[in-house]
Amino acid sequence: MTEKSCSAMARIMLQQCLQARLQVKPADEHSEAQFVQINRGMVIYVCFFKGATASILPKMVSTLLSLRLCESASGKMVSVTELPGSVLIVPQATLGGKVKGKAMQYHNNINKEEGLQLYQAFVSLCEEELKAAVASAGSEAEVTLKHGTYGNRQVLQLDTNGPYTHLTEF
Amino acid sequence: MTEKSCSAMARIMLQQCLQARLQVKPADEHSEAQFVQINRGMVIYVCFFKGATASILPKMVSTLLSLRLCESASGKMVSVTELPGSVLIVPQATLGGKVKGKAMQYHNNINKEEGLQLYQAFVSLCEEELKAAVASAGSEAEVTLKHGTYGNRQVLQLDTNGPYTHLTEF
Repeated sequence: MTEKSCSAMARIMLQQCLQARLQVKPADEHSEAQFVQINRGMVIYVCFFKGATASILPKMVSTLLSLRLCESASGKMVSVTELPGSVLIVPQATLGGKVKGKAMQYHNNINKEEGLQLYQAFVSLCEEELKAAVASAGSEAEVTLKHGTYGNRQVLQLDTNGPYTHLTEF
Repeated sequence: MTEKSCSAMARIMLQQCLQARLQVKPADEHSEAQFVQINRGMVIYVCFFKGATASILPKMVSTLLSLRLCESASGKMVSVTELPGSVLIVPQATLGGKVKGKAMQYHNNINKEEGLQLYQAFVSLCEEELKAAVASAGSEAEVTLKHGTYGNRQVLQLDTNGPYTHLTEF
């Protein structure tokens, strides 16, 4: 935060979970709602601001996946790839809001088209890095990356042993 | 955020919930874990920074309880007191963390003694204002304010129709 805030290109909120379940498609007349789910791991809420470009993504992804925010069985703090844990990415444009009287304004948020592109690239890069990290650790643990549908309502259920909420900007 | 960040005294994260359940006392050899729970309403995660004083609390509380972040039955956005909904306050010192390499640092966080005092005063003021607002609206809805135990691990379960995550500083 602090000195970066004035020119931040992305805001990220992280929460730890035992299990998280997110709707990726609402019910309609033809089908039931669809959900994705992860077990132990990290939920990444992401919001891009105006001016954000894909150039920030590699740093974002490597930082988020290597931050020691997960409590291992021994009580030591390790990264989600070291745990190893799963990742759920939740697009959360509301994170970019700013209080204006009794309402929130989102004037600094990126437009939807660019936001969608960055979101998709962010998800892909996270997927690659998570797979690579887990493979290089030779772990046989079943970790997975799931993500929400950009632009949808993010119907979310979260079960934590302490969300251990963290915020950072890029 | 932005220009306030350099001198922020408190950081708040808000999430909307259909139901939220928080552990307020862990299990020990004598008794089972204790939990508090709210139904429809707002979860307020709060973190105080160094230099925070009680003078910021009235503005914080009135702003948070009057922000139009809750979707009413008709789809209109209203405040949690207008909904009316319940409130769950979660002390969340980790929100004050700052990325330093692969770790988070909490150098700007208030010390525990002062943080506890501010937290208790914040909870009391929220309780008063929520009661007053609901009473003045003549609502018979059962709304309640629950809060976590400062300094504990905040074992939390959250069920949302979209967390609609917002961040603000004071």
